[in-house]
Amino acid sequence: MHRQRFYTLSASCPDRVGIVARVSSFIAEHQGWILETALHAEPPRAGESVGRYFMRIEIRADSLPFMLSEFRERFAPLASELELSWKITDSAVKKRLVLLVSKQEHCLYDLLARWKSKELDVEIPCVISNHNDLRGFVEWHGISFHHVPVTADNKAAAYAEVQRLFEEVHGDTMVLARYMQILSPELCAAYPGRIINIHHSFLPSFVGAKPYHQAYEKGVKLIGATCHYVTADLDQGPIIEQDVIRIDHTDAVEDMVRYGRDIEKTVLARGLRYHLEDRVLVHGTKTVVFR
Amino acid sequence: MHRQRFYTLSASCPDRVGIVARVSSFIAEHQGWILETALHAEPPRAGESVGRYFMRIEIRADSLPFMLSEFRERFAPLASELELSWKITDSAVKKRLVLLVSKQEHCLYDLLARWKSKELDVEIPCVISNHNDLRGFVEWHGISFHHVPVTADNKAAAYAEVQRLFEEVHGDTMVLARYMQILSPELCAAYPGRIINIHHSFLPSFVGAKPYHQAYEKGVKLIGATCHYVTADLDQGPIIEQDVIRIDHTDAVEDMVRYGRDIEKTVLARGLRYHLEDRVLVHGTKTVVFR
Amino acid sequence: MHRQRFYTLSASCPDRVGIVARVSSFIAEHQGWILETALHAEPPRAGESVGRYFMRIEIRADSLPFMLSEFRERFAPLASELELSWKITDSAVKKRLVLLVSKQEHCLYDLLARWKSKELDVEIPCVISNHNDLRGFVEWHGISFHHVPVTADNKAAAYAEVQRLFEEVHGDTMVLARYMQILSPELCAAYPGRIINIHHSFLPSFVGAKPYHQAYEKGVKLIGATCHYVTADLDQGPIIEQDVIRIDHTDAVEDMVRYGRDIEKTVLARGLRYHLEDRVLVHGTKTVVFR
Amino acid sequence: MHRQRFYTLSASCPDRVGIVARVSSFIAEHQGWILETALHAEPPRAGESVGRYFMRIEIRADSLPFMLSEFRERFAPLASELELSWKITDSAVKKRLVLLVSKQEHCLYDLLARWKSKELDVEIPCVISNHNDLRGFVEWHGISFHHVPVTADNKAAAYAEVQRLFEEVHGDTMVLARYMQILSPELCAAYPGRIINIHHSFLPSFVGAKPYHQAYEKGVKLIGATCHYVTADLDQGPIIEQDVIRIDHTDAVEDMVRYGRDIEKTVLARGLRYHLEDRVLVHGTKTVVFR
Repeated sequence: MHRQRFYTLSASCPDRVGIVARVSSFIAEHQGWILETALHAEPPRAGESVGRYFMRIEIRADSLPFMLSEFRERFAPLASELELSWKITDSAVKKRLVLLVSKQEHCLYDLLARWKSKELDVEIPCVISNHNDLRGFVEWHGISFHHVPVTADNKAAAYAEVQRLFEEVHGDTMVLARYMQILSPELCAAYPGRIINIHHSFLPSFVGAKPYHQAYEKGVKLIGATCHYVTADLDQGPIIEQDVIRIDHTDAVEDMVRYGRDIEKTVLARGLRYHLEDRVLVHGTKTVVFR
Repeated sequence: MHRQRFYTLSASCPDRVGIVARVSSFIAEHQGWILETALHAEPPRAGESVGRYFMRIEIRADSLPFMLSEFRERFAPLASELELSWKITDSAVKKRLVLLVSKQEHCLYDLLARWKSKELDVEIPCVISNHNDLRGFVEWHGISFHHVPVTADNKAAAYAEVQRLFEEVHGDTMVLARYMQILSPELCAAYPGRIINIHHSFLPSFVGAKPYHQAYEKGVKLIGATCHYVTADLDQGPIIEQDVIRIDHTDAVEDMVRYGRDIEKTVLARGLRYHLEDRVLVHGTKTVVFR
Repeated sequence: MHRQRFYTLSASCPDRVGIVARVSSFIAEHQGWILETALHAEPPRAGESVGRYFMRIEIRADSLPFMLSEFRERFAPLASELELSWKITDSAVKKRLVLLVSKQEHCLYDLLARWKSKELDVEIPCVISNHNDLRGFVEWHGISFHHVPVTADNKAAAYAEVQRLFEEVHGDTMVLARYMQILSPELCAAYPGRIINIHHSFLPSFVGAKPYHQAYEKGVKLIGATCHYVTADLDQGPIIEQDVIRIDHTDAVEDMVRYGRDIEKTVLARGLRYHLEDRVLVHGTKTVVFR
Repeated sequence: MHRQRFYTLSASCPDRVGIVARVSSFIAEHQGWILETALHAEPPRAGESVGRYFMRIEIRADSLPFMLSEFRERFAPLASELELSWKITDSAVKKRLVLLVSKQEHCLYDLLARWKSKELDVEIPCVISNHNDLRGFVEWHGISFHHVPVTADNKAAAYAEVQRLFEEVHGDTMVLARYMQILSPELCAAYPGRIINIHHSFLPSFVGAKPYHQAYEKGVKLIGATCHYVTADLDQGPIIEQDVIRIDHTDAVEDMVRYGRDIEKTVLARGLRYHLEDRVLVHGTKTVVFR
């Protein structure tokens, strides 16, 4: 991230000649100073004749003669002509994260350390948990903590409450930081591309519960973690980031769990960062990640 | 590998007090100089009360007052008492590899380079292929090449011929160096723990055909390769070694295939080396690998 | 780590025939149940005729008919005969860590998260810092915090105070968790093999200050971190653990600092764990690490 | 690499507003279909007020209404205006590699396997060596082999002969595939950014001879390899690619050499590929690598 305030334009559209020329000319005409550009042409998928073009452009805020609202207005006709699906965000407007946790602390400590050092430059208006264990730690950081118990019987009500809290604080992104509960389909559907989960396996291997036990039984030589967007299909959402760590025959399940925590928190932090910097563009069941 | 001639004892037995003491005392009584020892206690599996103990010990040949045959004779009573499943090999007796290849050259080049530089200190009495493409390259190295075509109709006969050739040259290990054919169940059953395959995915993800296409469709962020023993269950044999490489949205299937080749040859070479140095002990569907 | 209480014997001695036999027989005679054994023969160094043998053995506490003090007494004659340099520790006796920190929180958060989840099963009697910034966070965890300012003029007194505090709480190991100060030679000399530092480069590259700036200037494609024992020679102590992460031309120094933090905390945590589990045996300027 | 013929424009220039707009508009005006675009703004270096802009654009050849010579002519005024340092290459014109080898075969086998499978889509008009050992292998591939012995006395003449051979075959790039000789300053100076070396350490650690011995003495926990452009300063040229592999206390120097070979050949192959695809732009002592 840059020191200066900047705008991030992220967009995709059907591929054609001249997209970059048109968009970059629009920026240049207004003396926009481009800090970073990433472009990608995805080939046509099976049964389609046209591919899709993805872009992410960072423009220094003070190089433009107008504010974001006017940028949006002036850019709209071109965006419409190019059939752009787009958004532009302002580095000065902090995103609002709501964290969902359970009893395990490793991802929470990791994210709050990054938040406290301003590496993660966001607002965290609240943390929601189905347990009370981490309340003290969260509140010490000056962050509100909500205990929303989830039982076999109250799932609908519980997730309605989660959604109410998320709306109340104007949350942008919900992060399941080892939340260990399966969200309701309604909640998943309400925020496509806005709920991020960390799964403790290298997907698509070992979907569902107890992946380290599955890995142990299989005798794999590497274990991993996967950061992905949550959809109604369990552990099937678009993958944002993955990584692995080497294990061997001396490692019991408990050792894998321990090694796994290190991968989980790193992969979640990286994936979340890409998301927050608008580096992730969803393309069907996959992602384009402009690192 | 050491410069001096050495014997490698590899064994496993039901876990109990005193295994190491008994075995190492036997060696010490004969003034055996131990170069390397690796030991591992595997906990009892579900439903079992006793774990299993694994060991691998390298002994300098010239430190013992007798040859291997006498070692075997003298060691037998102790081995029997400890219920050892064991073998001892001599670094001066080169193992005999038979390579099975198809049309792709990357693993073959890689293995023959290691063989030529004596990193892979084995005999390669012959290479068998279902195509003739690599004949010249193999024969230039002074290695016999056998073309055994495999069609939908002749599988039984073809694999009988492969087995005949393997027996004829007194093969120890058969290596499927991107052979791309599924061996007959008979052939798999004939050589348990002696046929090594390299599969071009990070198993258990993407079993079977076209794993890179599967990986592309899924949108994973790492691709891998798996070296494993061949059993009658396709791509399900005990895993010896695995590794992965990072990819991203810019990589088409062809790029994955290209990256994958680098992982395949490295993982195969490492797994094969562990096997040849008697570092791999099979334990049910898993392996203990004393690296 | 195992669930049951166990003793860890770690030792080294001049290499000779029968070391393992003698030591393991001693354990077996008393019905000691070995959970884990790691052995290593280091070849003679230049100018020496005898190599050195290293061992680490975990024995289940309840399998022995006596306590540790009696083990020590009974084992002493054999240890003396083999010229063993040895120690034996008890998993039930928690080691006592003293953390030294400065203003950066990432390593401190990481270590305290591991401590809180009991992954790091130690006592942390106090944290010492040359700044007051992290006092609240430390004290929230119920850990004492000592502010010992270090200036150009008071170094001797400051490090004497650090040593006094370390002695007062009966510290076993001192961890420089991004402490950013160079300890006095006296302090280094007082605790050989007991002070652990994390250096933010892949040593021996980029010794001293601002290693990420050095890495940026050089244009390396990977940056790393090194966990090592502190000696009076800056950044030259025996290396315990290292790792690296990939960067590229898009990464400014600030990005490297950010990536580096992830490597620093992981490498420190791994190295510290090896140390606490008595897996690290110093051999001159190098280490044997039985992972 | 794409299936269709394409042109690759790679360029850099002083940073300013509108570079991308101008260049991409030029391409769009001629209906050029962009397959891949990579852009990078390097901030001003110490003492400079203006940064430098780097770009690499692949254009489908059949989308343009003219050939490369006309592209060059028409593009020249814009390039001049933007003060572009630029070149454009044609995927249909194979680059010409000259390999320099010594006695070690691993990099040579690796490169020729890639060349034979057309992964490395180049011409290799000849291989030059200071030994005759690899002649047969090279000639079997239908490639000319030149033996140019290098002694303490004939260096000037030997490198003059290497240069003559390189010129004679119209070589584009010279690859030192573990050549083990230090080129003359004259030869280095004659081909800046066109001679690629693989050094068997993670530079800047362990410059010069016997890096694995240096690594062994230092007790590092990872060893590496570095692919870089050759300059007159030994092992100091701009780094293109690096990687590392984990080792431990059980690895003797011979093991490091063996592990190192796997890293060397992979890093060389990757670095060479980036170079051949015009993905590497030199910036002072560093590189921008558009992977």
